[in-house]
Amino acid sequence: MTMKRVFALVCALCLLSAYVQAQKMPTMEEWLSGAPRTYTPPTNNYAYQWWGDNLIQAGRDTIFTVNPANGKAKRLLTREEVNRVMERNRLPQLSTLTNVQFLWPEERWFLINVRTALVVFDFATHTLTRVTELKASANMDYEKTTGHVAYTIDNNLYVDAHQVTNEPEGFLCGQSVHRNEFGINKGTFWSPKGARLAFYKMDESMVSQYPLVNTATRISEVDNVRYPMAGMTSHKVYVGVYDPTTKETVYLQTGDPTDRYFTNISWSPDEKSVYLIELNRDQNHSKLCRYDAQTGEMKEMLYEEKHSKYVEPQNPIVFLPWDETKFIYQSQRDGWNHLYLFDTAGNELGQLTTGDWIVKSLVGFHTKKKQAIITSTEVSPLQTNTYTVAIPSGKRTPVGNAEGVHSVSLSASGKYVIDLFTTPTQPRRTELVSTENAKSKAGLLLRETTDPFAGYTVPDAKVGTIKAADGQTDLYYRLITPPNMEPNKKYPVIVYVYGGPHNQLITNTYAHGARGWYAYMANQGYVVFTLDNRGSSNRGLEFENVTFRHLGVKEAEDQAKGIEFLKTLPYIDGNRIGVHGWSYGGYMTTNLMLRYPELYKVGVGGGPVIDWQYYEVMYGERYMDTPQTNPAGYESSSMNRMAGNLKGRLLIIHGDHDETCVPQHSITFLKACVDAGTFPDFFLYPGHKHGVGGRDRLHLYKMISRYFEEHL
Amino acid sequence: MTMKRVFALVCALCLLSAYVQAQKMPTMEEWLSGAPRTYTPPTNNYAYQWWGDNLIQAGRDTIFTVNPANGKAKRLLTREEVNRVMERNRLPQLSTLTNVQFLWPEERWFLINVRTALVVFDFATHTLTRVTELKASANMDYEKTTGHVAYTIDNNLYVDAHQVTNEPEGFLCGQSVHRNEFGINKGTFWSPKGARLAFYKMDESMVSQYPLVNTATRISEVDNVRYPMAGMTSHKVYVGVYDPTTKETVYLQTGDPTDRYFTNISWSPDEKSVYLIELNRDQNHSKLCRYDAQTGEMKEMLYEEKHSKYVEPQNPIVFLPWDETKFIYQSQRDGWNHLYLFDTAGNELGQLTTGDWIVKSLVGFHTKKKQAIITSTEVSPLQTNTYTVAIPSGKRTPVGNAEGVHSVSLSASGKYVIDLFTTPTQPRRTELVSTENAKSKAGLLLRETTDPFAGYTVPDAKVGTIKAADGQTDLYYRLITPPNMEPNKKYPVIVYVYGGPHNQLITNTYAHGARGWYAYMANQGYVVFTLDNRGSSNRGLEFENVTFRHLGVKEAEDQAKGIEFLKTLPYIDGNRIGVHGWSYGGYMTTNLMLRYPELYKVGVGGGPVIDWQYYEVMYGERYMDTPQTNPAGYESSSMNRMAGNLKGRLLIIHGDHDETCVPQHSITFLKACVDAGTFPDFFLYPGHKHGVGGRDRLHLYKMISRYFEEHL
Repeated sequence: MTMKRVFALVCALCLLSAYVQAQKMPTMEEWLSGAPRTYTPPTNNYAYQWWGDNLIQAGRDTIFTVNPANGKAKRLLTREEVNRVMERNRLPQLSTLTNVQFLWPEERWFLINVRTALVVFDFATHTLTRVTELKASANMDYEKTTGHVAYTIDNNLYVDAHQVTNEPEGFLCGQSVHRNEFGINKGTFWSPKGARLAFYKMDESMVSQYPLVNTATRISEVDNVRYPMAGMTSHKVYVGVYDPTTKETVYLQTGDPTDRYFTNISWSPDEKSVYLIELNRDQNHSKLCRYDAQTGEMKEMLYEEKHSKYVEPQNPIVFLPWDETKFIYQSQRDGWNHLYLFDTAGNELGQLTTGDWIVKSLVGFHTKKKQAIITSTEVSPLQTNTYTVAIPSGKRTPVGNAEGVHSVSLSASGKYVIDLFTTPTQPRRTELVSTENAKSKAGLLLRETTDPFAGYTVPDAKVGTIKAADGQTDLYYRLITPPNMEPNKKYPVIVYVYGGPHNQLITNTYAHGARGWYAYMANQGYVVFTLDNRGSSNRGLEFENVTFRHLGVKEAEDQAKGIEFLKTLPYIDGNRIGVHGWSYGGYMTTNLMLRYPELYKVGVGGGPVIDWQYYEVMYGERYMDTPQTNPAGYESSSMNRMAGNLKGRLLIIHGDHDETCVPQHSITFLKACVDAGTFPDFFLYPGHKHGVGGRDRLHLYKMISRYFEEHL
Repeated sequence: MTMKRVFALVCALCLLSAYVQAQKMPTMEEWLSGAPRTYTPPTNNYAYQWWGDNLIQAGRDTIFTVNPANGKAKRLLTREEVNRVMERNRLPQLSTLTNVQFLWPEERWFLINVRTALVVFDFATHTLTRVTELKASANMDYEKTTGHVAYTIDNNLYVDAHQVTNEPEGFLCGQSVHRNEFGINKGTFWSPKGARLAFYKMDESMVSQYPLVNTATRISEVDNVRYPMAGMTSHKVYVGVYDPTTKETVYLQTGDPTDRYFTNISWSPDEKSVYLIELNRDQNHSKLCRYDAQTGEMKEMLYEEKHSKYVEPQNPIVFLPWDETKFIYQSQRDGWNHLYLFDTAGNELGQLTTGDWIVKSLVGFHTKKKQAIITSTEVSPLQTNTYTVAIPSGKRTPVGNAEGVHSVSLSASGKYVIDLFTTPTQPRRTELVSTENAKSKAGLLLRETTDPFAGYTVPDAKVGTIKAADGQTDLYYRLITPPNMEPNKKYPVIVYVYGGPHNQLITNTYAHGARGWYAYMANQGYVVFTLDNRGSSNRGLEFENVTFRHLGVKEAEDQAKGIEFLKTLPYIDGNRIGVHGWSYGGYMTTNLMLRYPELYKVGVGGGPVIDWQYYEVMYGERYMDTPQTNPAGYESSSMNRMAGNLKGRLLIIHGDHDETCVPQHSITFLKACVDAGTFPDFFLYPGHKHGVGGRDRLHLYKMISRYFEEHL
């Protein structure tokens, strides 16, 4: 029984008492912002970082070192002291020390980034070791050993003062390519000691431009974005290797890049080789290839993987720190993401992890003990916990708290982690944990967030499982119920849905994620239900790829099972079921409204995919192939084909600058509904991209809530 | 008492009887289409036309001549006979004869247009007099004397086989310019005997393009339209004169065309001179100028007019058929549009018409009797009736029926008119009327449309006046009430509004225009009210230009008077008042919702102007000057500035290809409302321009009706 349920019980006993009357309901503003006290801590451990195996606590005015053995903090430096040195060197004053970076375990240095320059501060001597002036800071990538810095101006790559590429509009250099699929989120990759820089160059001059219209100008103007849609001509990617000493660039001799994906760039420890994982456009055949970094020559293909549906490499290979001839490759080939050990000759030396769970991340290594540190879902698909994995035996030992969802940052030796975690009863807690002392689960408390809604009326949230539409697979659901429910009363339901790959809504985080708008609506008297259907993430490959070539069909069947379950609950009003989601969830909302018009009365779909032919090549074709090769699948997955099924009330919301799900989705849906004689509602958020963020988020949620209040 | 009111009385007497139960309510489909029988006859007299003074009745299969004296029809020719000749000449067969044109009073010829050719058919000899092959038919302008034909391909002008202009994209030749303001609706003007062709050439390469997005393509594409917004750089217009004999073009030497309007092109009868009415960009100073057609030289300025607000010439000068030295000039200079007689030396010879009413059109002349034939509002601002005007005495004699709204077509001599009219009790009637026999008001009946809704329950409509917000001016209203109203019951109101210049909603047409959707909604139990506020048309210049530099303010004050009046009626529910309109009416709807949030509960504004800075130069600056010279006026007229006032429910509808009121209007309004924390509703009709026509019109009106049903 969760803390919330105990709390609900207490409330029930106090029913009608003055106490309950005095409980405050958080406002929507409070739920959305995390107020009254800031609930949401930063997403990284900015306040704590490693300096080798020393823990650094960097605050606004002071930096402390913390003894990992006993947690004792010792003052290292003050902002005043730093600013004195900055002033002497005619550099800007710092307003906080929280952003300094302790990049050099062997040196008493830290890095300061003051927009116009990168400054290496020596805190032993209170002098500056190195000052690198910055021409620009976009896509900045600093190499700590050599002090070289890569960055971009417009669409070209620069290193230090040198312009590395000189390409016209239509090319993109030194930036993320392939629309951030395949785990790609940047475009520059320094070799381990900084001798060379591998970088992406993308030629998208042959890609159609999608016109987004900016109405905030005197007369509307077009903001074009290159957007390769499923089945259409895609961009071509090249991988360059730049040598800062010679100022020369070689390009990897990959052959014709047409309809190929070059992913997961990594370096050999000796800096002589660059590794790519290459995929065909069909995304059903991957190859791990090694290139000579100096000549660009392709040296060998070490490993390949095929799958009848798709392969999706998302992690570059990682070499063992104690053996430069061996590396770890991550693969879903047995149906779950696991670690495999290879040598540089391409011999597979064994599977390091195995089981019906997935490795979520390879955090690093404990070199002395020859262990990898990983996080995984071994405890539960709803959890992420830390383990050491002995190499090559594969023996796993848990590290830290076995509950909840953990995110860890490893010290240089691998001896310690900063362990940030949350459990259903723990909002957020940061501990310092030894990876060596496996018996002692408890770490040293560094910081803890208390419940900002203590003293407020909050809804109950619980997690359970039902069977999927295949009758076999367990699906997790989260059920958030209004506080102080009255017996015999029937409550309307809002289903919050996502349902697509790369996403999981139900985890063992605090209150199972019953935060924000869900909780607000539950407080308003709605049951808020969520089900992670087949196709969603962290449940293995087969669970995900069952939707291949016909997105939306199996997902909807599973969601219908969720409604079937809800209707067995005595307090549910089965005639008042609404659904809301964004992006894939906007697609699912529309999909459920049209496939099961008898089940869902009201829907609000934001930034939806409507027809997969309008979605981009990389994500779209992985799951749907192309409109040319899978016309029936595209047709059965298209909301436009089902526009005539609309019976309930459906509000479609789109940002007019949505460059992820372009507005063509929603606008063609309006057309399809007009043609079919059905009546969706529509709202457009000017200037917003794929999400409606910032101060307008409150407007958005007021609009969504109002729609359910009016129609459900 | 109108026929409708008698009908309503009869219904009242039959209350609760089986008879009433048996009355049918027309469906929305029927109201919108005019079904069950086609109610709306064609807008021109296509079935009747003049061949000199002979009346021609051209049907599908047969052409008759009708004796104007007694109405006796005589068969002239059959389609079979025509098609036999066509076949012999290897020309396409005609499927109807209704479109042939009897252009030559002196010849037994008519013109056939078969897309690929213009054919002159001699019905005396059953041979073809002339066949002109057509390269294209866009903007086709046929000259009947010489047989020359002007047309356009893309943006250039052609005459016969010759390309007259050769301009790049950004120019428009031989087409309407100045966005159809100043009465301009075409770009070619043959001289009276066909010796030369005057034409417009517009350079709009310096005008900003408005990007309309077409989502019906594989990936959305931009359809750019050149759209000069108020205060922004406008196009430049040139007037060319092409000589088909020499194939040479001269351009009128107007001087720098920057920020000038060249309007109302006309020819002298001797073909030697071209006349323009030229305006400055401020539109407060017009000049009638004569140019030498052969050299392009400016010869003289004959007349000029200034006004502190604006002058708006909409009619070219017209020469007297019996005196080539005299012409008629139309002007609002005394506050009402009237006819003035000038000679070619520029001497003003007198005002031909005068009074607190307006000449609506100069139809033509009765040459022998030296009369002009006009239509005017002399009987009532709600009517259009026909008169002969003796020249130069100005003596007027009414022609035909003195009721209703007339549209006439004059025979060659001016002796007869085909008189198409409607009155509050007469759906539509076409008569043949002599202009000479003023005593006999009754014409010869040619065709009559009976009420298609006979036997159906239809609402009552009546017209009356109230005082404007100035306390003095009479404003006409139309009140449509539900059939079979119950005593003591309060009815909700829908105000249908336009309110802008160039438009009048209340006239003495059949049932005062209580047709279509208004009638449908009245049948559903709504009172439908319309008021032509100050600023609307046919009431004289002062009535119109009171809104100068602050559109929306006075109009809203007058409309508020309308609500005040409605609330004095015992059967009105003053808490349930809605408003709907399109274009300027969409502006007014938004305007009323925001200026008087306490009066209006629900609004539906279609294709609205939201901020005049986004409207075009010609119309916009006439009434508002520029954003630079009238910032306070633009601010007080901007709906975006008042977005925070929204209290009731307001649905904004826009066509995504609206090139009249560009979508920037509505989209900036959504942004303004999001910023202000208010909640408008929105719908976009993909592919539609300024109106939602065709089969989607039904969807539109269902959506509008549903909105009132849900929220009012």
